[in-house]
Amino acid sequence: MRVELLCTGDELVTGLITDTNSPWFEARLFELGVKVERILLVGDVRPDITQALLEVASRADVALVSGGLGPTMDDFTLECAAAAAGVPMVEDPRALEWLRERYAKRNVSISAGALRMARVPQGAEVVRNPVGSAPLVIMRLGRCRLFFVPGVPREYMALAEGEVLPRIRAALESDPERVYLAFRLLKTVGIAESMLDAKVAPLVPQHPQVVFGFRTHAPENHLKLMATASTQAEANAALAAAEVASRQVLGTAIFGADGEEYAPVMAKLLTRAGATLSLAESCTGGLIAQQLTSVAGSSTFFIGGAVSYSEKMKMAWVGVPAEVLARHTAVSRETAVAMAEGVRAACGTTYALSVTGYAGPTGGTPEDPVGTVYSALAAEGRPTHCERFSLTGDRDRVRLFAAISALELLRQRLLAGSSAP
Amino acid sequence: MRVELLCTGDELVTGLITDTNSPWFEARLFELGVKVERILLVGDVRPDITQALLEVASRADVALVSGGLGPTMDDFTLECAAAAAGVPMVEDPRALEWLRERYAKRNVSISAGALRMARVPQGAEVVRNPVGSAPLVIMRLGRCRLFFVPGVPREYMALAEGEVLPRIRAALESDPERVYLAFRLLKTVGIAESMLDAKVAPLVPQHPQVVFGFRTHAPENHLKLMATASTQAEANAALAAAEVASRQVLGTAIFGADGEEYAPVMAKLLTRAGATLSLAESCTGGLIAQQLTSVAGSSTFFIGGAVSYSEKMKMAWVGVPAEVLARHTAVSRETAVAMAEGVRAACGTTYALSVTGYAGPTGGTPEDPVGTVYSALAAEGRPTHCERFSLTGDRDRVRLFAAISALELLRQRLLAGSSAP
Repeated sequence: MRVELLCTGDELVTGLITDTNSPWFEARLFELGVKVERILLVGDVRPDITQALLEVASRADVALVSGGLGPTMDDFTLECAAAAAGVPMVEDPRALEWLRERYAKRNVSISAGALRMARVPQGAEVVRNPVGSAPLVIMRLGRCRLFFVPGVPREYMALAEGEVLPRIRAALESDPERVYLAFRLLKTVGIAESMLDAKVAPLVPQHPQVVFGFRTHAPENHLKLMATASTQAEANAALAAAEVASRQVLGTAIFGADGEEYAPVMAKLLTRAGATLSLAESCTGGLIAQQLTSVAGSSTFFIGGAVSYSEKMKMAWVGVPAEVLARHTAVSRETAVAMAEGVRAACGTTYALSVTGYAGPTGGTPEDPVGTVYSALAAEGRPTHCERFSLTGDRDRVRLFAAISALELLRQRLLAGSSAP
Repeated sequence: MRVELLCTGDELVTGLITDTNSPWFEARLFELGVKVERILLVGDVRPDITQALLEVASRADVALVSGGLGPTMDDFTLECAAAAAGVPMVEDPRALEWLRERYAKRNVSISAGALRMARVPQGAEVVRNPVGSAPLVIMRLGRCRLFFVPGVPREYMALAEGEVLPRIRAALESDPERVYLAFRLLKTVGIAESMLDAKVAPLVPQHPQVVFGFRTHAPENHLKLMATASTQAEANAALAAAEVASRQVLGTAIFGADGEEYAPVMAKLLTRAGATLSLAESCTGGLIAQQLTSVAGSSTFFIGGAVSYSEKMKMAWVGVPAEVLARHTAVSRETAVAMAEGVRAACGTTYALSVTGYAGPTGGTPEDPVGTVYSALAAEGRPTHCERFSLTGDRDRVRLFAAISALELLRQRLLAGSSAP
């Protein structure tokens, strides 16, 4: 089944509004095994809308058209549909009745503009809108079934969920060409997109029913697996095989799947281990603390974080000795180690992470230029582990990757710990 | 000038990603008086992309095409463009040189996949990408000029702003149908959108050439002024008058205009005052420190921030007396005051801000339910000022508004100080 979406409205082509309806509807359709083929956005220009309707109808089996159903003078999507179909606009008695009821219930007299919402292309079917005035309008244009819904997200979603999706589902049941999809998103950190591709490439020929896709969502890289088959069970099996193979080559670079996010995953690992954490941040300036505390319930494992931006506070809060700062400077392996050990002692936690580096745009030394970051992990009864990272990009990017690099020291340690005999 | 946007990527048609690039670019074009005619989104399907390119080129003078320029096997937008134009793909020596430089700088060996980013349709022009690997590619298809940029927002925006918009601007200079626009975005905090609307409404009839628009960008609310005229000077004058009137009614709720952002504005105020700042954050968990330290050069005013998430660290790092915590709890006016005064003493700063509250989803008391936040401002030689905020929404929203509410205590103090005789 070919499905297209057409969204109308000047606000969508002038940057005033971001179309969030379409991604929502696409995701709902994708769950049914339908990948939308095109999404088209056009402004409030009659010939553009009419032309777009004709184009969409020439290609698609089903189209969801949104926007331009309201009472104001820039609402004329149905008039364009009538023009495209070569039929007149007529007043629909049922739609008129619903409008009258709705206005009466609110004790508002019905305006001439509002009455326009009862006018539809001749031959169209109307379905009551449970949360608004303009009805869902369904009509055929050539071989395409067009569903017209308001653009207001609340009304769009109510009608799409309650009326449009059930009709599409019913049509799919009898579609002889129906394909079944299964989908998995594997989320990685610490591995570049090109490296991810290289590692996965040998798997591709072994999984002909699965499409391997890649997506960068800094600092993460995601691998998308989409299996296609003629039954759902077959699609699920093909997906499962590709997922197992991908997990084998990517190992612990994968931190989660589908809707899972990094900070909650880390929170779960810490909670499961019954461990507590403290932080000493310099160049990341509170970014790691902010990420971890965004997770509800983080107070069970997070005890405290020192944003020790000055040398003074590196000494006062996390006990970095003055001679370490004097001899090695604030951006050094020795300072990172002292920060991690110092904050762990101050907070009395199982683990502590520290970060110090040159986020830029200025600073740095010939040996440690901008982008150099030292991060240390201190833990109960284990030597402190410190790494040096050379990060590229602007200040925001260096901070983002410094934060994830530090957190990865901890996540990999927790994973290694949990798999130990 | 007819402009269309074409966005490619399976993630855009399956609901995984919301296209935020296009609204941004539409708004930038609209400031130049250009309304985008169509935005088309298609998945990673070769014939669909090729067909879409041909259609767009048959209608538009200029098209911005995004996505599918990376190193992986689902990146083939340029191959589709070559197919549409009927030309072969060739390796561009300049693009190859940029790639080699970029990889050498990062000490990474260049993969076969990465080398694909130097291959472009024959006859196309390449422009270096300042923040990524894939270059901007410019080519003609019929009478349409196509600009190809990566879909990653950072790279999309850098190339669109730095390379595409200047070329469009130059082309517009010679367009006889041009209308002149002038724009101002006034950014406010601490004032609800409906209140902003109510305050500005009386100005609207007095400025017939100016459109007043509103936009919520939590925790900020923006007032958008757009003047239209037949000469640039007339548009500028109409805009200036509306801006003066708006500033009069909104006062210090306005923190900046156009591209100005909150944290850098705050950094400038502190630097100008020669003041230093420390923070004691509980429920915001480092969010305020992270925002302020995202500004380059923040180490000149920011000394340190304690993310004192536990009672223990509220005592150890910022000296909240145990009896204050015992008698008043960690979320109280008394604790907020002690945190601000304690962190100011520890860091020896001109100012200190503290935040403590219930971010939710659980916690709170009958008197101080979830959403209750206390924030205090301590300053040299002045009594500490504390406010209680009742915030609504989920955990993220409470933290976001808690952070801005705290920062506003300081910004308003700094503004009052600077305007004193």
